[in-house]
Amino acid sequence: MLKIGIDAMGGDFAPQVVIEGALAAREQVGDDCRLVLFGDEQAIRHELDRHGASHAMFDIVPTTEVIGMNDHPAKAYNQKPNSSIRVGYDYLKTRQIDGFASAGATGAMLVGAMYSVGAIAGVIRPAISAQISTLDGSSFLLLDVGLNVDCKPDVLDQYGLLGSTYAEAVLNRKRPRIALLNIGAEKEKGNLATKAAYELMAENGKYNFVGNIEANEIFSGGKADVVVCDGFVGNTILKQTEGFYEIARQRGLSDAYIDRLNYEYVGGTAVLGINGTVIIGHGRSSSLAIQNMIRQTEKTIRSGLITKLQETFRNF
Amino acid sequence: MLKIGIDAMGGDFAPQVVIEGALAAREQVGDDCRLVLFGDEQAIRHELDRHGASHAMFDIVPTTEVIGMNDHPAKAYNQKPNSSIRVGYDYLKTRQIDGFASAGATGAMLVGAMYSVGAIAGVIRPAISAQISTLDGSSFLLLDVGLNVDCKPDVLDQYGLLGSTYAEAVLNRKRPRIALLNIGAEKEKGNLATKAAYELMAENGKYNFVGNIEANEIFSGGKADVVVCDGFVGNTILKQTEGFYEIARQRGLSDAYIDRLNYEYVGGTAVLGINGTVIIGHGRSSSLAIQNMIRQTEKTIRSGLITKLQETFRNF
Repeated sequence: MLKIGIDAMGGDFAPQVVIEGALAAREQVGDDCRLVLFGDEQAIRHELDRHGASHAMFDIVPTTEVIGMNDHPAKAYNQKPNSSIRVGYDYLKTRQIDGFASAGATGAMLVGAMYSVGAIAGVIRPAISAQISTLDGSSFLLLDVGLNVDCKPDVLDQYGLLGSTYAEAVLNRKRPRIALLNIGAEKEKGNLATKAAYELMAENGKYNFVGNIEANEIFSGGKADVVVCDGFVGNTILKQTEGFYEIARQRGLSDAYIDRLNYEYVGGTAVLGINGTVIIGHGRSSSLAIQNMIRQTEKTIRSGLITKLQETFRNF
Repeated sequence: MLKIGIDAMGGDFAPQVVIEGALAAREQVGDDCRLVLFGDEQAIRHELDRHGASHAMFDIVPTTEVIGMNDHPAKAYNQKPNSSIRVGYDYLKTRQIDGFASAGATGAMLVGAMYSVGAIAGVIRPAISAQISTLDGSSFLLLDVGLNVDCKPDVLDQYGLLGSTYAEAVLNRKRPRIALLNIGAEKEKGNLATKAAYELMAENGKYNFVGNIEANEIFSGGKADVVVCDGFVGNTILKQTEGFYEIARQRGLSDAYIDRLNYEYVGGTAVLGINGTVIIGHGRSSSLAIQNMIRQTEKTIRSGLITKLQETFRNF
């Protein structure tokens, strides 16, 4: 039985939309999947009743505390041992669940990832990544999107390998093309970090480095499966994408491609480089976003990504 | 007489579109303006003839060399003393023209700015800036967009003052709101440079610092007249904006706001912090872009920006 842990208290509209999303995802995940809900038992059962759903469809792990968006991540993680995030990670660490997904406090989710399952041996710094749709009907993985905002060149180089392993295992790309986000096509372009990273990535040999890519090229598709950048830059790209999606929506522009830029479509941000499958959803997550976050968690668990990353970095 | 120098050989489609743009701009600039064309005299006269235009409408300064997009900027600037860019800067330095605009090699234009008129006393590093339309019908100035890709905090702080002086003088904003591009609203968010820059900007007192702004907020308008960032980040934001404009165009989405994101609408990138008015156009400039670049040069000259910047930084 494959067990997917879900923070029922995570996100601006929890637990309502989380239960709605979990009910929808329940119809889509494999028969060998069991969804495990962490949260206020009474509230969860109340929501299930509201939808006329059988309580037996889920495992419920009762928790009594919630880590809020404004709590200090590390302090709250330590001082709220009975919070849905903390208990979820305890279950992940002890392998009572195979993956953990939450649209709750991002900071506490990242602290928990490091405190519980920890970084994979050989990984200097884990990253968070986002899958973004491209015009040609495909997508690319962008990393880091905000965990490390002062990336050294060797960290950017490792992101190439993290991304390559993910793209192959989870996105089924053969020999994934890894590009470095830069401000020019030529290898001598960029800031100190990207210039040095280019050299390391070109020499690495463990993944298929295809050179620099500029921000106006990433959305067309056809050039890269993975785009590597510093967390400050990646976070800015992601937020600007969100901004444009909002502009299109506000201007009443209807377009199938732009609709796919909506965060709801993907559901969550995968934490890469840790000893467990962890997906973090957007705080504003709708039930559709929660549903997709759960499906993404299932897909990542089934891909065997964690074992592949552990093997890959054993010899880095 | 106000003299606007134009590199007739600058840009992918020079001199044809430059002459077309200059002819269109000629109808719009003030009667006290004289457009001065630097370039191959025969080619310029040929283009004027093609349009049935009187040669007496322009001053023509004959040059015999061109700095190409693939030339090494500093080498080419020194080794091509008779190039349109070099001669244009010689005229700017000796005040035979009041401003200089080119859609030619950006690198050589930046080298020329430093070699000829040089940085304003007190300015640590000049910047290049772009004016971007906002949804509320206004615009903001983004800087740096690519000149300094490893900005120290004190440089970011100065960009606040450069931008504030520009927004007041050229964009007629009263008490311009200066924001720092960051990945969170709170002051403790960001990378090492933005965290330190926030402190400096908040304490500066010479401009109206309004705190952090995130990339999803810059296009709505209403929050900032100037957005300050590192050149790597600014260049990425600009290119991503270009990318989205292209997506909208390819998808056949027609929208008045998105049309205003087209680079042609603004015309050029102002070099800020040097002792002269210099505008650099996009290499792909159309005649409309050239026309707007020339109008922007006129507007900047008339604003008295350079004198204001020199006074402002005398006491920095």
